[in-house]
Amino acid sequence: MSSLKPPIIVLNFKCFLEATGDGALRLSKIAEKVSEKTGVSIIVCPQHVDLYRVASSVNIPVFSQHIDPILPGSWTGHILPEAVKATGASGTLLNHSEYRLKLSDIEFILSRAEALGLKTLVCANNVRVASAISQFNPWGIAVEPPELIGTGIAVSKVKPEVVSNAVSEVKRVSKDVLVFCGAGISTAEDVSIAFKLGVDGVLLASAYVKAKDPESFLTSLCEASLAK
Amino acid sequence: MSSLKPPIIVLNFKCFLEATGDGALRLSKIAEKVSEKTGVSIIVCPQHVDLYRVASSVNIPVFSQHIDPILPGSWTGHILPEAVKATGASGTLLNHSEYRLKLSDIEFILSRAEALGLKTLVCANNVRVASAISQFNPWGIAVEPPELIGTGIAVSKVKPEVVSNAVSEVKRVSKDVLVFCGAGISTAEDVSIAFKLGVDGVLLASAYVKAKDPESFLTSLCEASLAK
Amino acid sequence: MSSLKPPIIVLNFKCFLEATGDGALRLSKIAEKVSEKTGVSIIVCPQHVDLYRVASSVNIPVFSQHIDPILPGSWTGHILPEAVKATGASGTLLNHSEYRLKLSDIEFILSRAEALGLKTLVCANNVRVASAISQFNPWGIAVEPPELIGTGIAVSKVKPEVVSNAVSEVKRVSKDVLVFCGAGISTAEDVSIAFKLGVDGVLLASAYVKAKDPESFLTSLCEASLAK
Amino acid sequence: MSSLKPPIIVLNFKCFLEATGDGALRLSKIAEKVSEKTGVSIIVCPQHVDLYRVASSVNIPVFSQHIDPILPGSWTGHILPEAVKATGASGTLLNHSEYRLKLSDIEFILSRAEALGLKTLVCANNVRVASAISQFNPWGIAVEPPELIGTGIAVSKVKPEVVSNAVSEVKRVSKDVLVFCGAGISTAEDVSIAFKLGVDGVLLASAYVKAKDPESFLTSLCEASLAK
Repeated sequence: MSSLKPPIIVLNFKCFLEATGDGALRLSKIAEKVSEKTGVSIIVCPQHVDLYRVASSVNIPVFSQHIDPILPGSWTGHILPEAVKATGASGTLLNHSEYRLKLSDIEFILSRAEALGLKTLVCANNVRVASAISQFNPWGIAVEPPELIGTGIAVSKVKPEVVSNAVSEVKRVSKDVLVFCGAGISTAEDVSIAFKLGVDGVLLASAYVKAKDPESFLTSLCEASLAK
Repeated sequence: MSSLKPPIIVLNFKCFLEATGDGALRLSKIAEKVSEKTGVSIIVCPQHVDLYRVASSVNIPVFSQHIDPILPGSWTGHILPEAVKATGASGTLLNHSEYRLKLSDIEFILSRAEALGLKTLVCANNVRVASAISQFNPWGIAVEPPELIGTGIAVSKVKPEVVSNAVSEVKRVSKDVLVFCGAGISTAEDVSIAFKLGVDGVLLASAYVKAKDPESFLTSLCEASLAK
Repeated sequence: MSSLKPPIIVLNFKCFLEATGDGALRLSKIAEKVSEKTGVSIIVCPQHVDLYRVASSVNIPVFSQHIDPILPGSWTGHILPEAVKATGASGTLLNHSEYRLKLSDIEFILSRAEALGLKTLVCANNVRVASAISQFNPWGIAVEPPELIGTGIAVSKVKPEVVSNAVSEVKRVSKDVLVFCGAGISTAEDVSIAFKLGVDGVLLASAYVKAKDPESFLTSLCEASLAK
Repeated sequence: MSSLKPPIIVLNFKCFLEATGDGALRLSKIAEKVSEKTGVSIIVCPQHVDLYRVASSVNIPVFSQHIDPILPGSWTGHILPEAVKATGASGTLLNHSEYRLKLSDIEFILSRAEALGLKTLVCANNVRVASAISQFNPWGIAVEPPELIGTGIAVSKVKPEVVSNAVSEVKRVSKDVLVFCGAGISTAEDVSIAFKLGVDGVLLASAYVKAKDPESFLTSLCEASLAK
């Protein structure tokens, strides 16, 4: 698998129909191709039911969209960290604004993920929350003002101070934690600005999944990320 | 795929490690073999992340353990009914005592499942709840007193009136809804008693997943179900 | 306390600032005055923290906005049914679209409320859900299409079939269960239409709490309810 | 109202029947008497429905057991911070192990509580969680290993390192944040050890609520807290 180093582009497939089943496979293979072509690290985050199929078909990192705060046992319908690991996924998103978690559950999940060797990218709705999460020393933290998610109005453009403050706050606690930003990221320019503000990566969803030409769109983002 | 008619045995893999990844595949193939050998309908319910792998490898019905009350779109970490359908699964468990749902969500999920052609097996913790669920006309209702789940003390033995009352209450509302019982089912005798009480099927988990010899254990249950 | 018989007007104070603390007391006293003047049964539903203060100050029925599915014991921050009863409240709203409950919790709460002599008015988002709730034989069921709540567009005007179907479905199961409608009710005409559709009562919130002259507004609703 | 300075004893009434309604009032008046007699700061945390009655009857600080992450408006059954303030309560418990909160909700509630002048005592299940909460600069943090709650086996005795690590971690981030410990505290000795480990206060529930002689029991705790 290609190594994971900044700049990193994270693609959240959410529950979009275009990114379900065969669509998940197609969009993951495009991401793999663009990553190989540009040398930029790209992570895809398909739905749980598509994890195995995607992870066994592409040579880029595959993250789950969530894992549950559980140990193996009597749980029906839950997402067992060990089961995600067994699909070939190498990490997980956590605490997305569409799946916010209890504080004590975040702490527990992070300890489980670390024990299993799963990378964790924990979302934060603002800088204060990012700062609290940084105490847990996850692999990465993604600051995403929820009011911008899905709007096409990029956090890096309209709230640059949120991005730069998240970077400085998190890096102050631990230089090793990667900082991402997301919400509204939909053009190469948004990506370029984000990296200039100091992030290690960006997180996007609908802009990629619903792009008319995902390959050229993603290529343009990768080029912007390298031009920082 | 083998047709689905009573007697039916439903195997919930829960989040047991023995039933995760390769284990899910192994236990599903054993179930397929026993179903072919005995002619009894057997449904397996692996974890979400194992659905595709299992459904594309066996010729018996595969059910999800849960689906979320959502339409395709901006949901992170959720279980989209359309995505479950795309794995090849043909139905889903719902409202298990380990994943109880809001009443309005049950109603919505059932309407989505029906639209997508997914069968629904809705769990109820007692007869009153089974009676309320029967108003929604699901494919099946499984009555499971939560205090007996995982105990090895079978509902059919110690609470036969719960089983027979669930059967009569549900069939009174709709003859077409299948009635199952579960909780503590762990021997051929438990299964035999259950079918004598009038159920169309039984639901079990740990007794199968943790059996020393799953094939002979499951064969004995199938034989008991046919002897009713 | 005045007896409770149709027509009944239920006033949900929600968490509006105008209906908090002193405001809850003021709006409850106005409701008491209008009830005495018109002879129409009026129920007020203040916030939990205002229940005692309101119930010990007015002579009309006071309902809680919610109670939790618990027995007395180690629960922090929960709403114990026994504690609500001890304030002098005589019933509770349940399963409001702003506080939807799990099916099994509704069943348990209703059994607790009955044991304690608390009346229950259970909300339903559509007719199918109302039909399921009717299996539990609560004191009343209020059908409220959530998309109309707080809009000022009355369910009785734009979805009369939802109201009349809820009435016929619920009364078919049990003649004793009272049927209410809510969502968007904001004029005397809305109330008049609702009662002509066969309801025993109406449920409203912002239209009363935010009325410029709550007394004359409520009086006009009572007169409309009597003119059916 | 008596000033609030260490040593502080916080009494969580939970949903115990002995601490409901008249019982809440009785136990609060005893706490007031003991506080006046010993000079030790005592905070009582009655159920929501008893807040007004208690806060208007005693001259010691009254805390809520929880407040919701909401602004005034259309919320049914929720605990509005403004409404808690209006009862005369001066603060609130938050994130108790029996009412764990989402990380983003803790952040939001703390900002609302600060705006309204409500003190916040946020519970943490371990030192890592306490460390994350300290980033939000609440009034106090209470470390409570959940497995000890209600056992009568005191955290200060069997897990002294949890207590002392919580003190040093939190004080490292902010000297102004008060540190409490709880879980199993049930004797004067437990209290004495806790204060020797550096806490500013202790949190207890059943040991006080179910004491045969609450006045003498609480007096003994106060004396132990002063002897540090």
